[in-house]
Amino acid sequence: MAGEKTCGIGLIGAGIVGGGVAELLMTRRELLARRTGLDLELTAVADVDVERAAAMGVPRDRIVSDYRRLFDNPDIKVVVELIGGTGVAAEAVMAAIDAGRHVVTANKALLARRGREIFARAGKAGCIVAFEAAVAGGIPLLISLREGLIVNRFRSLLGIVNGTCNYILSRMAASGLSFADCLAEAQRLGFAEADPSADIDGLDSGHKVALLSALAFETWIDFSSLHIEGIQNVQDEDIRIARDLGYTLKLLGVIRPETPPELAADGPGGGTGRLFLSVHPSFLHDGDPLAGVSGSLNAVRTDGDAVMESLFYGRGAGRYPTASAVVSDIVAVAAATFFGGRGPRWFPPERNAYELAPMADYRTRYYLRFTVRDKPGVLGAITTVLGRNGVSIAAAHQFEGNHPNGVASVCIVSHTAREGDILTSLTEIGGMDFMQGNPALIRIEE
Amino acid sequence: MAGEKTCGIGLIGAGIVGGGVAELLMTRRELLARRTGLDLELTAVADVDVERAAAMGVPRDRIVSDYRRLFDNPDIKVVVELIGGTGVAAEAVMAAIDAGRHVVTANKALLARRGREIFARAGKAGCIVAFEAAVAGGIPLLISLREGLIVNRFRSLLGIVNGTCNYILSRMAASGLSFADCLAEAQRLGFAEADPSADIDGLDSGHKVALLSALAFETWIDFSSLHIEGIQNVQDEDIRIARDLGYTLKLLGVIRPETPPELAADGPGGGTGRLFLSVHPSFLHDGDPLAGVSGSLNAVRTDGDAVMESLFYGRGAGRYPTASAVVSDIVAVAAATFFGGRGPRWFPPERNAYELAPMADYRTRYYLRFTVRDKPGVLGAITTVLGRNGVSIAAAHQFEGNHPNGVASVCIVSHTAREGDILTSLTEIGGMDFMQGNPALIRIEE
Repeated sequence: MAGEKTCGIGLIGAGIVGGGVAELLMTRRELLARRTGLDLELTAVADVDVERAAAMGVPRDRIVSDYRRLFDNPDIKVVVELIGGTGVAAEAVMAAIDAGRHVVTANKALLARRGREIFARAGKAGCIVAFEAAVAGGIPLLISLREGLIVNRFRSLLGIVNGTCNYILSRMAASGLSFADCLAEAQRLGFAEADPSADIDGLDSGHKVALLSALAFETWIDFSSLHIEGIQNVQDEDIRIARDLGYTLKLLGVIRPETPPELAADGPGGGTGRLFLSVHPSFLHDGDPLAGVSGSLNAVRTDGDAVMESLFYGRGAGRYPTASAVVSDIVAVAAATFFGGRGPRWFPPERNAYELAPMADYRTRYYLRFTVRDKPGVLGAITTVLGRNGVSIAAAHQFEGNHPNGVASVCIVSHTAREGDILTSLTEIGGMDFMQGNPALIRIEE
Repeated sequence: MAGEKTCGIGLIGAGIVGGGVAELLMTRRELLARRTGLDLELTAVADVDVERAAAMGVPRDRIVSDYRRLFDNPDIKVVVELIGGTGVAAEAVMAAIDAGRHVVTANKALLARRGREIFARAGKAGCIVAFEAAVAGGIPLLISLREGLIVNRFRSLLGIVNGTCNYILSRMAASGLSFADCLAEAQRLGFAEADPSADIDGLDSGHKVALLSALAFETWIDFSSLHIEGIQNVQDEDIRIARDLGYTLKLLGVIRPETPPELAADGPGGGTGRLFLSVHPSFLHDGDPLAGVSGSLNAVRTDGDAVMESLFYGRGAGRYPTASAVVSDIVAVAAATFFGGRGPRWFPPERNAYELAPMADYRTRYYLRFTVRDKPGVLGAITTVLGRNGVSIAAAHQFEGNHPNGVASVCIVSHTAREGDILTSLTEIGGMDFMQGNPALIRIEE
């Protein structure tokens, strides 16, 4: 490596992704040196389980059990946090910043929940916190939003950003099996964790949506105010009905300004007004490129007012795809350290371009399904309530479905309607004597 | 703009894309200042047609007819070349470099043909030549390859990188009309130029493939050695037959190492052996995400050994999408000027990672169509020759098609075969007395 500057890397967390990062750094040191002019040295790995780190092929004299030991070594310029979660990971990131180290992390939960504090602390210390791998794994999405599309104001962002949910929904559609059966299968095959709640409840997608909002819409939200619905209540019946109607069900992160920016206009806020931010199961028309993204893949579609529609598609998780993104951050941070420049330095917007809009004001087409006792006048009663609340109906169907005798499904597809009017209608309809259980509400994104 | 550093921009060429760049720089000065910390000033626009520049809203005292005037102004740090072609554009780029200016260009023809010389000259002068807009227009593809996926060695790259060809092929498939009819339609609608030859002959795609080879495969080729077939000879009959077989026809840029790199292996060349580089009409299975990219859109699919399959999809041309990419380069170059660092600095590889492989050694499945006099033994004669040359047949069909009496089409789909063996067979078959005209050969990419 004669001639290259050596940049020491300290890695915290020798798990799946940590192992991939260590392997890539060790086996591709020459390749990266040729491509970057930097000798990236995996100087030390910290993990409470020393044996796990040793099994990755890291020499034992480079393994420590206490991550704080990394900060004693002045050669370590970049600290890579791959513990995950908001406990020890938060302490490690704060400690690294306090020790004046640049940080690379894939930790979407930590940044979505405590990002303001972390970025402020990093700013004060002059440190970079890079997080390409935190959203959409291996897909170079954040650098594309932050740099490649920098002149755009976005009219919308729709993303499939959780591979576990996409795998389960794809399997439900392909097999006709229930959510519970497909979750169990995903767990057997390693596509879902033993405790899958952070994925299926939509929290993981929510973390990513919060970060995408900050990057692409200059709007940093309090994570607790985000609207999140997971896939845990998705019924196979709705997937079947939707298929007949030409729709595919996906868990989407959705970001939409209430009034999309226009190309000609400009404002100091990069947009003005209110922003809808949500994670929810959505029907997409079968012809939509996002509808064709199946299995554990991720995809994000943006609509920039200059560039128009773009789609980024690839592996959102997994050992090497995520490690690919982490290493790209390591390279960028190391380059900024040795060659100067801002590198992947980023801080949340000082002033939000948008306010958060309440979902009651969301406007789209809605799919509603009611389980009813099959008696005369039911369809009329439901449609009358919707009409009175200003919801115009595009299609209505009544099925016998799989229900026992005398119970049927009524399925309504609305024209574009205001969500508050839909919810008011559902409350009214819910009080009617023919109703059995709760209605299903699924937004149709177009 | 208090507090920001002002970076003067000189724009050469007030055409479609130049107008878009000027408009974005003028209307989004504040937005860009907020996002970048830089005040990007459109200091001067050069165009031989001064009125055209004035029509873009540029104040007259900022318009010059001779681009060399831009170099007199020391405030102009970045020169944007949007003339296109390899004539005046080459002189302007060389002159800008000689005047010590960083260059942003969308000129794929110039870089593919004279890139070595230009980058060498820029290197000596300490100048950046940035060219995000040269491939796939608005899609942030080059930054993704150069930075986001930097640790990967690619196993393949397939791209639809010419919107004109994709529009024509999409229309042929949808309408059943001939190439000539669809070209005329594309010209009427502004999707093809009055002289469409650079697009339909595949040259434009070839320029992009040459640049992608350098960026993603560290292999810079002599442009004249690139294998290029356009769409000018595509027959509507083949599109129809293919549709029945479940294939869609696309003009693809294809880059494939003969021996794909493996994740575990590493070599100083980032890959070794030979590289297939080609532009040719290809059949893709209907389920392939690239097959669904229709109209004037572009898409590039890469297979990196760490990140696996990624797809980048969006507008490959057009005023604002291309301007979006040009402005991203302007921002990156300006940031490097004022904040330091390497910015989008890139130079062709000093040593090629791969040698160019002859297409005779290409291996894929082939679609062949022969127009024959319909007499006994024709199918047998054709398949016998193929078999003798080691080409194994997956399917064979004989159609009456649209031909006059006594003439038929014989269509063969091979298993994976060596292209040289296919060509030897075609020569032999071409000499047989039942042959009418030339056979069609279309590669099936999987």
